[in-house]
Amino acid sequence: MSRFLTDRYKGLTPYVPGEQPADMTYIKLNTNESPYPPSPKVLEALDKTAVDRLNLYPDPTGARLREKAAALYGLKPDNVFLANGSDEALAFAFMAFCDDRRQAVFPDITYGFYPVYCALFNIPCIQIPLREDFTLRSEDYFGINKNIIIPNPNAPTGLALPLGDIEQMLQTNPGHVVLVDEAYVDFGGRSAVGLVGRYENLLVVHTFSKSRSMAGARLGFVFGNAALIRDIDMMRYSFNSYNVNRLTLLAGEAALSDAAYYKDMQQKIVAARDKAASGLKALGFAMTDSKANFLFVRHPDIAGGALYKALREKGILVRHFDKPRISDYLRITVGTPEQMDTLIAALRTILENRNNLRTP
Amino acid sequence: MSRFLTDRYKGLTPYVPGEQPADMTYIKLNTNESPYPPSPKVLEALDKTAVDRLNLYPDPTGARLREKAAALYGLKPDNVFLANGSDEALAFAFMAFCDDRRQAVFPDITYGFYPVYCALFNIPCIQIPLREDFTLRSEDYFGINKNIIIPNPNAPTGLALPLGDIEQMLQTNPGHVVLVDEAYVDFGGRSAVGLVGRYENLLVVHTFSKSRSMAGARLGFVFGNAALIRDIDMMRYSFNSYNVNRLTLLAGEAALSDAAYYKDMQQKIVAARDKAASGLKALGFAMTDSKANFLFVRHPDIAGGALYKALREKGILVRHFDKPRISDYLRITVGTPEQMDTLIAALRTILENRNNLRTP
Repeated sequence: MSRFLTDRYKGLTPYVPGEQPADMTYIKLNTNESPYPPSPKVLEALDKTAVDRLNLYPDPTGARLREKAAALYGLKPDNVFLANGSDEALAFAFMAFCDDRRQAVFPDITYGFYPVYCALFNIPCIQIPLREDFTLRSEDYFGINKNIIIPNPNAPTGLALPLGDIEQMLQTNPGHVVLVDEAYVDFGGRSAVGLVGRYENLLVVHTFSKSRSMAGARLGFVFGNAALIRDIDMMRYSFNSYNVNRLTLLAGEAALSDAAYYKDMQQKIVAARDKAASGLKALGFAMTDSKANFLFVRHPDIAGGALYKALREKGILVRHFDKPRISDYLRITVGTPEQMDTLIAALRTILENRNNLRTP
Repeated sequence: MSRFLTDRYKGLTPYVPGEQPADMTYIKLNTNESPYPPSPKVLEALDKTAVDRLNLYPDPTGARLREKAAALYGLKPDNVFLANGSDEALAFAFMAFCDDRRQAVFPDITYGFYPVYCALFNIPCIQIPLREDFTLRSEDYFGINKNIIIPNPNAPTGLALPLGDIEQMLQTNPGHVVLVDEAYVDFGGRSAVGLVGRYENLLVVHTFSKSRSMAGARLGFVFGNAALIRDIDMMRYSFNSYNVNRLTLLAGEAALSDAAYYKDMQQKIVAARDKAASGLKALGFAMTDSKANFLFVRHPDIAGGALYKALREKGILVRHFDKPRISDYLRITVGTPEQMDTLIAALRTILENRNNLRTP
């Protein structure tokens, strides 16, 4: 920290993204990326013409991509906001709608970036504890009269809420925004995007980083009432007007035109998840009923931190959160079937030598 | 504006980027892009392997690109910050270093985004009038004890300051940050980046949108003392950790490895600028001594707005700012020699029919 930093950020604790080590080649099951490349249509779209035109700014309105994305859900382009990844969209939404009077509420165990946005923008955040089994008590949010940030499915638990619960949150908080973060919805959740036309206080956030194999391209979406979308857009035009680059706009359009490819990939991932879940259970692991592209697991005999380290030594990266209530869990991204077999074999070996490891 | 928008942003006026109309093909001389494509090495770098790996997040530290950029100026990687375009870098810098006690000061005529950042982050901004001829009175900034944002060359005037003046600003404001925005430095200015090692309060902002033909890829840089860079990086990690996408990181590295190509393009642009300046003077235009890739011109007989419209009708887009002191000026990006010839021919025709136009 320099002596020039403004007082309000002294003591700010930023988000810590999953590690991207360069010391060796790992099986990366730590940042919930897709193990598959983007659709071949993306490669076609990023051709010589596209690269040669990089001298020109992107369309700051992203008109063509917004039109395509809107059409997918029977919406209008002015119901769609484009972001440089969904984290940026979340940042703009926290900025636009939350302050010390319009507070933010979300679960105590959830995506670690939400409390960071609160700290950054000086927003009091209220974190409501999940139940002991990590399920969310929807009633806690009914009529709470605050801005609700609801990840569905939740991360890192993978647990999904029924749409009816989301709808009750919307109905009982008509004066506040309900933001549904659907980063993982394509692996078994049900999207609230179909409710956009009916609730003026609904925002639905999507990302192309998971199910669309484009984490490296940075593309996030917000769907919502046109007035809400205009507000977020005002934040963007006051921060970074050209936030989504030309190649990502093209890649996004190409991805949207190959629904069949992505459906196939998503089915592969769901199948690999369910098979890996069985394998892990056979080794004695307990886990949540994840509807996402990751599993959230713990072993009764080994502490989460020790297991994380043992896997890392074997060249497999998973995510361990050294936080209350979940420090004995690992969040394991679903990779290819082969990667999951390697993971399970590695865990079997580790468990056979478990006497060398600290127990919880 | 929705009824959910937080009070502090009611009345916020965002930045308005240069128009990108899709109704016909214009000669685009309105957003200071390079008229030339990026280096062929950029195309080589964005190959099938690069696109197939878009499923993976980018390196959030941008280590390889920071190393290359640092080496270019004899700096260390921890002196370099990467942004999704230099606007994002500016936003983070305003956030990190300015507040109601540590105010921001910059010229009254300059890049229109600076006052927007002040409004967004609730920073009182002090705008110091340029002289009548748009030159900057450096003494106004000596010992001012505020954070100084100094564009060099300035936009839209194109006027450059000697490095000695920047150095005096740094020396006489040791308790505040001096941010030098060098978006246009490669067309005739002198960079302050060589001073980074000597002043702990210096930040130098660069962009690849102008001289590197990569406006569409979004890549900005900040060079400065490691402690200042860490502060900006803390903002980024609290806002959007993966802010620069994979392809842009690769494109940036490729661009840095082809200095000869860009030097050639920059020389072409400077030559076209100087030739166009002569042509415009012959038509009676007055102008500043621009060291940037644009000309800032006015004609004694025709109002800026009328001239802008007349050019637009002829398929040529330039930038007109309907603001005090500069409303009779046009900012004209330097394109290819052919585009500049077309511009001058169009202006000649317009001037020959000037009786049809409103005079200033």
